[in-house]
Amino acid sequence: MSLFFEVVSVDEAIEVVRKIAPPPGCEDVLLKDAFHRVLAKDVHADIDIPGFDRSTVDGYAVIATETTGASEAIPTMLQCRGQVAMGSINAGNIAPGSCWYVPTGGALPAGADAVVMLEHAERIGDDVLVHRPVAPGENVISRGEDFRTDDVILERGRVLSPRDIGVAAAVGADRVSVATMPVAGIISTGNELVPVTERPGPGEVRDANSSLAGAFVTERGCHPVYFGIIRDDRAALKQAVASALERCDVVLISGGSSKDERDNTASVVAELGEVLVHGVALAPGKPTIIGTVQGKPVIGLPGHPASTCVVLTAIVDHLLAVMRGTTVSRRTARARLTQNIHSIRGREDYVRVTLKGGEATPIFGKSGLLNTLVQSEGLVRVPASREGFEVGEEVEVILW
Amino acid sequence: MSLFFEVVSVDEAIEVVRKIAPPPGCEDVLLKDAFHRVLAKDVHADIDIPGFDRSTVDGYAVIATETTGASEAIPTMLQCRGQVAMGSINAGNIAPGSCWYVPTGGALPAGADAVVMLEHAERIGDDVLVHRPVAPGENVISRGEDFRTDDVILERGRVLSPRDIGVAAAVGADRVSVATMPVAGIISTGNELVPVTERPGPGEVRDANSSLAGAFVTERGCHPVYFGIIRDDRAALKQAVASALERCDVVLISGGSSKDERDNTASVVAELGEVLVHGVALAPGKPTIIGTVQGKPVIGLPGHPASTCVVLTAIVDHLLAVMRGTTVSRRTARARLTQNIHSIRGREDYVRVTLKGGEATPIFGKSGLLNTLVQSEGLVRVPASREGFEVGEEVEVILW
Repeated sequence: MSLFFEVVSVDEAIEVVRKIAPPPGCEDVLLKDAFHRVLAKDVHADIDIPGFDRSTVDGYAVIATETTGASEAIPTMLQCRGQVAMGSINAGNIAPGSCWYVPTGGALPAGADAVVMLEHAERIGDDVLVHRPVAPGENVISRGEDFRTDDVILERGRVLSPRDIGVAAAVGADRVSVATMPVAGIISTGNELVPVTERPGPGEVRDANSSLAGAFVTERGCHPVYFGIIRDDRAALKQAVASALERCDVVLISGGSSKDERDNTASVVAELGEVLVHGVALAPGKPTIIGTVQGKPVIGLPGHPASTCVVLTAIVDHLLAVMRGTTVSRRTARARLTQNIHSIRGREDYVRVTLKGGEATPIFGKSGLLNTLVQSEGLVRVPASREGFEVGEEVEVILW
Repeated sequence: MSLFFEVVSVDEAIEVVRKIAPPPGCEDVLLKDAFHRVLAKDVHADIDIPGFDRSTVDGYAVIATETTGASEAIPTMLQCRGQVAMGSINAGNIAPGSCWYVPTGGALPAGADAVVMLEHAERIGDDVLVHRPVAPGENVISRGEDFRTDDVILERGRVLSPRDIGVAAAVGADRVSVATMPVAGIISTGNELVPVTERPGPGEVRDANSSLAGAFVTERGCHPVYFGIIRDDRAALKQAVASALERCDVVLISGGSSKDERDNTASVVAELGEVLVHGVALAPGKPTIIGTVQGKPVIGLPGHPASTCVVLTAIVDHLLAVMRGTTVSRRTARARLTQNIHSIRGREDYVRVTLKGGEATPIFGKSGLLNTLVQSEGLVRVPASREGFEVGEEVEVILW
């Protein structure tokens, strides 16, 4: 096979990974274990929420029209018939000229349609003087006002937040159907690599990419499985990819993806399956490989952690999102550039930046430095259609 | 004890929770399990990174001064002495007039100080014609340029991101010291509450807050332990708080915290320990309780999930951060308001908003509706010193 790239755009690469992403399976989990999982089926309301007309304040449930014209000078006088207990409907129909004390969250007696806040009423024995009128519905959430039975509360594809989990609980979703967590096999290749536990000898470096990619897929709701460091040896890599494919839904191979003659990843993927992309118009991250083997995506990442980070963020994120049945949802911030960013038209650049007080400062210098990864707060994407951004321009920063 | 509030400001409440937060313990974990954990000790470089002068491109390692004046028309001719293998230093000193082929990431031979990119050179047998001059250091990361031995790479208190994990791997931090995960006991109180698995009867609602608070503390790197629903019964609540304190570092009790006479949380906390705050100038979320029992924080949250969300975000987040040995780091975005927000001076308001194309639209209407929790993308905080924001103003949105 050819060792030369036919470079595709980032958008094309994303399209390819979205196309080859196997769809997620589905499993039921307890709601308490569902945080950060992706809903595989809509969650519906099984009942009206609230299930009754509910007071939003501590006060007196009344017939609103009876308070018309009430003021400090000429209060409306109502007879208090008692107190509504939380968790029950102990009041009968409300009689004209009467009211019931109702605590926040309590049910209004039938016929009552508003609640006068305690602060706007005065109790004298069994009588209540109402000092302000209330409109019908005031301080009340009506039955079904929040959700109606069978309403879709949370849609399929949603990544469940704590708030979502709370709302799901309210509608009785004790168990929810979520996408199974994709299992990602992680392989690093390169004769220069030694395990993290070893001290590198001359010319050697520790394998940072396995740890990095493992944490990245974890953050994206996948299970990493580590297959260690493979020498620059085609047979060994082939073997490793084959075992990874037995256990995993996707395989990420870092290193061995540039066009240098030592590189094996593309040829191994081609031998086992198909190389769909070899080279993306992306900086850093050009020598990215996208292929499939046995219907599973196999991705070749650049050897350098800084480039790997960008490829994971720009491309692999989309793959994993589809595999989880969702879309990429990025935290972003708008910021003004403190310096020009120069780029090359036709290539998408991802520039690391620090963020402070709404200003983004590009970290220039050598992009291969690891320290830029811990110093930067995000990435500015320069689209392929642009030659850069100018100082003072407002740009979107992908917070990473 | 008094059932009336002496309301404190949000800042004062934060100060109190930060003060009563027990400091985290420390444990060593494998780096691969350290994602999202908080570093309890700095991570240092154990070696220079890189450990050798490393090429950032595929090309020819040269003595830079020998390429001075090189051009397409008058190239510098150098003799290629061989190829540097990845992971070793197989080249001796570079001799004047010579060069070595070096792949990306490979080590420069001693004496070489720059690399000519393949694209700027032409190989003819053993000779290499260099078409462009290189400056000393060009296409090279020098030994120790990224990190020097003993440099602090990642500081104590940092929440470990995938990038951090990658960089920690590079400096040999196979295990890292992280803060122990706080255990948060979660109790819901209220006669109106039924478990998520039950269908609420008249006047009843499902317990949404336990699930919500559990997912919230999980998101903040804590372990939730659920103690179920406790009736509005002082003895039962006292018992539940006592058992929670046996197993947990902090206890969150939702419901039972407003000034209505049925409310027990404050009196139970007062009996068992000390109530420090009962009422915060916060909307929604006023009836917040902050206390300590046996040196552990006990927090009373409002009964309504929407208010609970705000109190968790505005106050409890700070407590949990200190308990993890870090600070609150919020994802925020700047956005322009599409409508006025009215507030009351002296009270901090948190207004739910939707976000689209840099514009924030407040969700008004009844703040007690659960659907606002799933529809909103964030919160706009109106400081106590302001009476609101005007349409068109740029505000900070706390992304939740």
